[in-house]
Amino acid sequence: MTRIAILGATGYTALELLKILARHPQADVVALTTRQRANPHITEVHPALSGLFDLPCEMLSHQEVGKRAEVVFCALPHTASMEAIPQLLACGCRVIDLSADYRLNDPGVYEEWYGHVHTDPTRLSTTVYGLPEIYRDRIPRADLVANPGCYTSTSILGLAPLLANDLIEPDGIIIDAKSGISGAGRSPKPGTLFAECNESVTAYGIGNHRHTPEIEQVLSDVAGTPVRVTFNPHLMPMNRGILCTMYPRLKENQSVDDLLAACREFYKHHPFVRVVDSIPATKNVTHSNFCDISLRMNRDQLVVFSATDNLIKGGSGVAIQNFNLMMELDERTGLLSC
Amino acid sequence: MTRIAILGATGYTALELLKILARHPQADVVALTTRQRANPHITEVHPALSGLFDLPCEMLSHQEVGKRAEVVFCALPHTASMEAIPQLLACGCRVIDLSADYRLNDPGVYEEWYGHVHTDPTRLSTTVYGLPEIYRDRIPRADLVANPGCYTSTSILGLAPLLANDLIEPDGIIIDAKSGISGAGRSPKPGTLFAECNESVTAYGIGNHRHTPEIEQVLSDVAGTPVRVTFNPHLMPMNRGILCTMYPRLKENQSVDDLLAACREFYKHHPFVRVVDSIPATKNVTHSNFCDISLRMNRDQLVVFSATDNLIKGGSGVAIQNFNLMMELDERTGLLSC
Amino acid sequence: MTRIAILGATGYTALELLKILARHPQADVVALTTRQRANPHITEVHPALSGLFDLPCEMLSHQEVGKRAEVVFCALPHTASMEAIPQLLACGCRVIDLSADYRLNDPGVYEEWYGHVHTDPTRLSTTVYGLPEIYRDRIPRADLVANPGCYTSTSILGLAPLLANDLIEPDGIIIDAKSGISGAGRSPKPGTLFAECNESVTAYGIGNHRHTPEIEQVLSDVAGTPVRVTFNPHLMPMNRGILCTMYPRLKENQSVDDLLAACREFYKHHPFVRVVDSIPATKNVTHSNFCDISLRMNRDQLVVFSATDNLIKGGSGVAIQNFNLMMELDERTGLLSC
Amino acid sequence: MTRIAILGATGYTALELLKILARHPQADVVALTTRQRANPHITEVHPALSGLFDLPCEMLSHQEVGKRAEVVFCALPHTASMEAIPQLLACGCRVIDLSADYRLNDPGVYEEWYGHVHTDPTRLSTTVYGLPEIYRDRIPRADLVANPGCYTSTSILGLAPLLANDLIEPDGIIIDAKSGISGAGRSPKPGTLFAECNESVTAYGIGNHRHTPEIEQVLSDVAGTPVRVTFNPHLMPMNRGILCTMYPRLKENQSVDDLLAACREFYKHHPFVRVVDSIPATKNVTHSNFCDISLRMNRDQLVVFSATDNLIKGGSGVAIQNFNLMMELDERTGLLSC
Repeated sequence: MTRIAILGATGYTALELLKILARHPQADVVALTTRQRANPHITEVHPALSGLFDLPCEMLSHQEVGKRAEVVFCALPHTASMEAIPQLLACGCRVIDLSADYRLNDPGVYEEWYGHVHTDPTRLSTTVYGLPEIYRDRIPRADLVANPGCYTSTSILGLAPLLANDLIEPDGIIIDAKSGISGAGRSPKPGTLFAECNESVTAYGIGNHRHTPEIEQVLSDVAGTPVRVTFNPHLMPMNRGILCTMYPRLKENQSVDDLLAACREFYKHHPFVRVVDSIPATKNVTHSNFCDISLRMNRDQLVVFSATDNLIKGGSGVAIQNFNLMMELDERTGLLSC
Repeated sequence: MTRIAILGATGYTALELLKILARHPQADVVALTTRQRANPHITEVHPALSGLFDLPCEMLSHQEVGKRAEVVFCALPHTASMEAIPQLLACGCRVIDLSADYRLNDPGVYEEWYGHVHTDPTRLSTTVYGLPEIYRDRIPRADLVANPGCYTSTSILGLAPLLANDLIEPDGIIIDAKSGISGAGRSPKPGTLFAECNESVTAYGIGNHRHTPEIEQVLSDVAGTPVRVTFNPHLMPMNRGILCTMYPRLKENQSVDDLLAACREFYKHHPFVRVVDSIPATKNVTHSNFCDISLRMNRDQLVVFSATDNLIKGGSGVAIQNFNLMMELDERTGLLSC
Repeated sequence: MTRIAILGATGYTALELLKILARHPQADVVALTTRQRANPHITEVHPALSGLFDLPCEMLSHQEVGKRAEVVFCALPHTASMEAIPQLLACGCRVIDLSADYRLNDPGVYEEWYGHVHTDPTRLSTTVYGLPEIYRDRIPRADLVANPGCYTSTSILGLAPLLANDLIEPDGIIIDAKSGISGAGRSPKPGTLFAECNESVTAYGIGNHRHTPEIEQVLSDVAGTPVRVTFNPHLMPMNRGILCTMYPRLKENQSVDDLLAACREFYKHHPFVRVVDSIPATKNVTHSNFCDISLRMNRDQLVVFSATDNLIKGGSGVAIQNFNLMMELDERTGLLSC
Repeated sequence: MTRIAILGATGYTALELLKILARHPQADVVALTTRQRANPHITEVHPALSGLFDLPCEMLSHQEVGKRAEVVFCALPHTASMEAIPQLLACGCRVIDLSADYRLNDPGVYEEWYGHVHTDPTRLSTTVYGLPEIYRDRIPRADLVANPGCYTSTSILGLAPLLANDLIEPDGIIIDAKSGISGAGRSPKPGTLFAECNESVTAYGIGNHRHTPEIEQVLSDVAGTPVRVTFNPHLMPMNRGILCTMYPRLKENQSVDDLLAACREFYKHHPFVRVVDSIPATKNVTHSNFCDISLRMNRDQLVVFSATDNLIKGGSGVAIQNFNLMMELDERTGLLSC
C-alpha cells in the first residue's frame, strides 16, 4: 500500500482520481488539500464519494503533505504547481503533476504560451512527460511525471503511429477537436453555465490554445523532425469526452488497411489504445481509460479520429496509469483489473 | 409606437424580451441599462440580437430612463426593483416589473420570505398582479404591473379552474415542479455550471422557495378561501421549460372529462392557455407563450399537469402580454400575430 | 470462476452487465445470445467492449446455453423469459432474471397488469425477489432470482425504513418518479428519439405503469399490511438516473433527524444504500451501485428522496449483487471492490 | 392570401414550416398530407400546434392537392418528391421542394450519389436552386424551387464570398461540420435514439454524404471554376444547429479584417446573413433564419465558421424565404417582420 495525497481536492480531476483510487488495491489516500476554506469533509465537496472516503480537505503546508504521503497527485492550477512541487520533491515525495507547469521542456516556450516566467526552469528538461504509450520506459524511474493535457493525449495518440512511420507530412496538420464541458473545470465562469453551453456548439481559443505547443513538442519527438499543427478546439454540450478529427496530408498513397495495420503494430503492447474499425464515438470511451482511434480516406484526404474521456485517459486515468508504472505495478491496476 | 426601456439588459429575461420586441409592431426600444460595466453594445452581450437592435447597454439614472421611455420593463433583481420603481413612476413611466418586489400584497409576508423590509410597502396592495388569465380586467388601467414568477404562473394556471369551481380541497396540494436551468439566471454559480447540471436531476429549495407565498396568494384569491400548497421544485438538465405535476385531493368524484370541461370553460376567452388531451410536454410550449394543461386520475388520486416556457409564458412573454393589455392592443400582438 | 451466459446481449442491460463482469474476479463469460441476427461479434454490437470480450452473440438453444453455463443472466423481454427459464432451470442452471416475468407472486396480478396469462404460474410464489436490502437471506439458496424493476428498487429503498417502523400511513403514498431515457430500452421507438426527448420533460404511464404492483407487493411485505401507492413516472432528458420524490403522510410528528436515524439503522449492514444529509442528485449515484436516500419536511408534508442509476442499482448492478450472494461471495465484489 | 399545401406533414420540417406559417400574414394553409395513416389531426401529430391549426393530415392524391392549393411545400423523402412534383406542376401549382430530388443539375451526378436513376431528368437543369443569397434573382419567376440541404447552405454561405473574390484555392477545402440530431429526421432508427446520441460525439458519412456534390455544384458556380471539398459531418448531442468549421487555403496573405470586409460586402443586401466578429455559436442562430459567419487565422491556416439552425435557415425558414420571393413579398415576411 502506498500513502497518497491529492493537492487541490475540490475539482473534477480529484473527484475522478478518488473514484479510481477507491477501487485501487495498492492505494491508501491519507491527505486531501484545498486552498478555499478550512476542513470541509470530502463528501461535502463531492457527495458521490459518500461511503468511499472519510477524510477532510485540509489546508496543509507542503511539508505536512510530505510527512504524510509517499506519492502526491498535484491537481493545482498552473503556477501553484511549480511553487509546490520543488518543496514536495525536497521532502522525498514522488509527484504526478496534473497541471501544465512541467509539460513543456523549454522555459521560453512556457513563457510564450503562459505569459509568465517559469520559476523552476531547470527541472523542465528532466521531467518525464507522462504519456505511457510514448514514454513508458522513462516513467518507472521518475520522481516527477508531468501528466499530459486532455486534448494533447488524444491528438498525439491518433497521429503518433503515422508520424513515427513517416506516413504523413509533419506540417500543416489540422486538428479539429471537440470536447465536453468538464474540460473547462469547476470554477464558475459565465461561459460554462448550463444555459450557455447546452443546445449549442462553438469554437474557442483559435490560435492561442495552450495545448498546441505540447502537441508539437511530443509529436516532433516522435517524428524526429519538427511537427506543426493547427489546433482548433470546440465545446460540445456534453459532460465528458473528446473527439479529435485530424486532417494530415499523406506522404504517398496508402490503403486504409495498411494505415490501420501500422497503428495496430504501434500499439500492440499498449492495452489502453484500441485501433477500431468503426468511427470512434466518445460514448465508447467515457468512464474508461481507453483511447479509440481509427481513420478513413475521404476522397484523397486522410481523416484520423481519436477519442478519449478527457477526465480519465485525458486526466485522472492516465495519472493512475503513471502511478502504476512508477510503483512497478501492472499498468492496468485499478483501471481494467484490480 | 411606444418608447420602451429595459432595465437590466444583460440577463436571459431581457434577451427574450428583445427577441419578442424585435417582431412587435408597436414597440420602439429606446434604452437598455446595465449596472455592470459601461456601454457594451447589446449585440456584444447577446450576439443572438445581431442585426436586430443597434443600442448600447448604458448606466442611466432612473430620471434619464424616465425622460426617454414611456413604458419600462424592469428586469432588475429584487430590492433593486423597489428602489427604482417609485422613481420611474414619479417620472410618469408605466412599469412592468419582472422582479419579485411587487408580487406579494402583504409587506409582512414579503419580509418573512425575502428576509428584509420592503421599502415601498404602501404600493404593494394596489399593484396589479400581471397574470392576465386571472386579473386581465385590472391590467389596462395599471401603471405598475408585477409580472408573476415562472413556477407561480405555471402552478396557478393548472389549479385555478379547479379551485374556482370548488372541485378540489384548498389545502394539502402537493406541487412537484420541474424546471430547466435558465430559471436560475445568468450569474455564474457553482450549482448551475453545465457539468454540474447535465446528466443529473435533483430537488432544491424544499420548504423555502419564494414562489410558495405567491402561489398561495393568488390561488386563495381565486378560491375565495385560504389555499395551502407544498411546493417542491426540481432542476432538469434542459435550458427552458417547466412542468408542474400537481396532486390535489378531489372534493367528490368527478370524471376526467368533466374536469377537463371545467378547465376549458374557465379559459375559453384566454388564447394562451390550451387545455389538451395528451399529457403536456415542455417541448410543446417552449419558445411560445402557451401554457398547456391537462389532468389524469391515477387510481383515486387526481394529477394535474401544467407546462410553460419559464422564459416566455413564465417571464418575458407574459410581460409582453401585459404590455399589450396596458396599451389596449390585442393581447396576442408580437406573440401569436403581429 | 463461474461460467456465465447472458441471454439477450444486445440491450443496455447486457452492456452494463458486461462492463461490470469485465472487472469481476470470479466471472467467466462463456456465452452471449441474441434473437436478432446470426453471430455479430459483441464488439460490433457494443463497441465500448472492444478489448474486453472476444465473443460472438449467438442464436443458441436453451439446452446449449445450459451445457455451457452455470449461471445465466436472462435479459430477455417479458414473456420470452418465462418461456426460457423453466428450460434453463431444468438444465441445472441458476438464473438471474432481469425481466418482469417472475417479480410478482400472484399470477392473477401478473395477468391484470401484463395483459396475458403467465405460463409458469406455480413458480411465482417460490421465486426470490432479488432486492438484497430486503430479502438478502433468501438469495444464497435461490436457483431463480427475479431482479427488481428500476423504479421499483428506487421507490422501495426510500420508503421501506419508514413503513417497517410504522412511521408513515400505508396508503395514499404519492411517488413522483423521474427517469433517464435509457430505461426505455434500446429498441427504436418514436418517443425515445433524441430530438423528441431532449430539451423536454413529460409524464407517461399515469395509472398503468407496471412497476406499480411490484412496489406495492414488496412494501406490503415490509409493512405487514397492504400498502397502496400512486406511481407517476416522468422522462428526463438524460441517459441514466432515477430520482423518486415521494410524499407519504407521517403517522405522527417526528423530527427529520429521527426519521434519518431510523433509515440509517435500517440500512446499517447494507453497503449500497447511503442515507445522506443533502438532497440526493442522480449524478452522485450514476455509474455506481449506490442508492442515495434522504428526506425533508416541507411545512407539514414529509418528502422522501431516493436516487439510483437505473442501469446499475436499478438493473445490472443489483443483478451482480445477487450473483455475488448466490455464489456466497462478498456482496460488493466487482461493484466496490474486486 | 395564398392557399398552401404541405406534403409530408408529420416530420420536423413540416412542424417548423407550420410554426412559421402560423405567423405569416399571407399564408392560408389548406391541406396537409401524410402517407402513414388516415386522418390524424395535425395537433395529434404535433401537439405544439394546438390552437394554431385545425386540419387533419390526409391521404390526398396529387390532383386533389393541386385543386386546393396554389403553392405546395413538398416535404416528402427523395424519390417520392420526383414522383409527385411533375403532377403538381401539371396542376398549375408552384412548388418548393424540400427533398434532395431537384437540387443537382446533372442526372448522372444524382444517380452516382443517390444510387438510382432520376425519373424526371430533363427538369433538373432548369430547376432553380433556392439559396436566395446566391440565386435570388431567379426565384421570383420560378415554378419549382429546390430548397437546399442544411449542411449545404451553411457551408456555401461561409465560403461563397471568399471564392467569388478569388481569395482561396478552389480545391482541398476541408469542411468539418457539426450538426444537431434533428437533421436525421423523425423516423425511429437505432442511431438516433436519445441514449445513443446523448453524451456522445461521433462522425458519420465520411466520403459518401450526399450534400457533398450539392456544395460543390453551387460553389463551382460561384467561383467560376471547379471547386472540390472534403466534407466531414459529425453528430452533436443537441436538437438543432449546425456549425461548419472550414479550412480553405488562402491564395495570398490577407488580413482577417480584409476578409471580413469582403464577406460584409458580399452580403450587404442579404438580411439573413450576419458577418460577426465573435466566433459563431449555434445558440445565437437557433430558432431564427440567420446564418452567422466569421473567420480567424490560426497561424497560417484560415478558419471559416458558419452557423445556422438546420431546421430554419437550413430547411423550413429558407423555404419561407423562397416562398416570399416567389410571391414578391418582402423576403423577411413571417421570419423577421410580419
